[in-house]
Amino acid sequence: MISQAKAKLIHSLQNKKIRTRHGLFLVEGTKNVLEVLNSEYVVMEIVATEKFAERYLQDVNVPIWICDAERLQDLGTLEVNDSAIAMVRMVEKPIPPTEELRKNWVLALEQVRDPGNLGTIIRIADWYGIDTILCNEGTAELYNPKVIQASMGSFTRVGLYYCDLASVLPTLRMDTYGATMDGISLHQMEWPVVPGVLVMGNESHGLSPEVLAVLDHRVTIPRFGRAESLNVGVATAVCCDAIRRTTSLSK
Amino acid sequence: MISQAKAKLIHSLQNKKIRTRHGLFLVEGTKNVLEVLNSEYVVMEIVATEKFAERYLQDVNVPIWICDAERLQDLGTLEVNDSAIAMVRMVEKPIPPTEELRKNWVLALEQVRDPGNLGTIIRIADWYGIDTILCNEGTAELYNPKVIQASMGSFTRVGLYYCDLASVLPTLRMDTYGATMDGISLHQMEWPVVPGVLVMGNESHGLSPEVLAVLDHRVTIPRFGRAESLNVGVATAVCCDAIRRTTSLSK
Repeated sequence: MISQAKAKLIHSLQNKKIRTRHGLFLVEGTKNVLEVLNSEYVVMEIVATEKFAERYLQDVNVPIWICDAERLQDLGTLEVNDSAIAMVRMVEKPIPPTEELRKNWVLALEQVRDPGNLGTIIRIADWYGIDTILCNEGTAELYNPKVIQASMGSFTRVGLYYCDLASVLPTLRMDTYGATMDGISLHQMEWPVVPGVLVMGNESHGLSPEVLAVLDHRVTIPRFGRAESLNVGVATAVCCDAIRRTTSLSK
Repeated sequence: MISQAKAKLIHSLQNKKIRTRHGLFLVEGTKNVLEVLNSEYVVMEIVATEKFAERYLQDVNVPIWICDAERLQDLGTLEVNDSAIAMVRMVEKPIPPTEELRKNWVLALEQVRDPGNLGTIIRIADWYGIDTILCNEGTAELYNPKVIQASMGSFTRVGLYYCDLASVLPTLRMDTYGATMDGISLHQMEWPVVPGVLVMGNESHGLSPEVLAVLDHRVTIPRFGRAESLNVGVATAVCCDAIRRTTSLSK
């Protein structure tokens, strides 16, 4: 049975300050827990239903606590969780060296504040084979449970690094393409043969003047109807698809 | 001041049964309320903060009740609402005649259950100039406050009709393109000059055998990385963009 102290710790990891202090974060639900077990992340402990433990955790070499679904839902953030919660060690990695980054497209995010949007974008990057996301400090925190949840396991495969975009982007010596409302049509854009950086801005305000100033190109998703904007996750996917459409063969 | 009975009615409209009984639904927040006032929908009453009423409702000819933001948040579903809530009359329109539908691309949704996803898809349809969405009964309800919220006002411009897709699609005499995991690459697909129907399936299970059986074409978004899937809203946007990329000139 899980102790009161342990239960309290798990529950408190919903809070960023506590996460940072312990260097631990929560991974919840079947898909995410299985993905994290299958990744380079170090899983410290798992709370799971008996059914989940029997089916998936037989050969897993970490402490496992059994409880029912109701208790899991109390401990974590999911409305429905009949599988498991893992406590996982945070990793702090430096940004990969420039010569590494230049081998593939990079995604840069400025102030994407909504955790659901960030998680969705991590999943999109993973789908489109982009393994590095640079984001500035105003972006949602990677280890927020809502980010982890929305990433559907993709957080284990995509490296996310916080930095000052306006000063870091120029040092990469890669062509930068920012999504704005006044750029070249995405459908007309000629993407380069060598990889570049796709830069997406804040949900309401787009890119800041500081980041706009270091862009090489501005690109705009053409509109055919009357909606004022697209959600930033949706816009990221449409841009990534356009990039892979024309650059995938030269990848 | 707003009466107890009125407050109770507004609050109860979060419930589908009550919405259906009264034929009323809630529209919340600045953007959505302004859009609905500017649309063909009939707004019955508005609850608003004094600031919002002074700024936007001077010439609006419907009963207005003033209250503070805290009260608005109690009455409605938004965590933060310092603007307004409108009570709006539901509209039941029959599916437009086939010769009307055939003039533009149509979007069809099978069992898109998450209200946030449905709202996002309505906004995407509006962006890409698609004004008709057909969906089967298992799809989320248009008048769910989360659908209205996520549509960002686009629900006023896109017609959504519930029907049995498997029996209605063949009667349209339009080419149908279903998003599946085993179709032709979206990047290779040759879209027709005349408009067709894009068919998207359920978040977890995709399209049913019944709908698959009436499709003319299957199309797949190519994957370049390792994520298992894309969110259905994201996938809809990527497909719509591909369609408009090649068919916009002949529109």
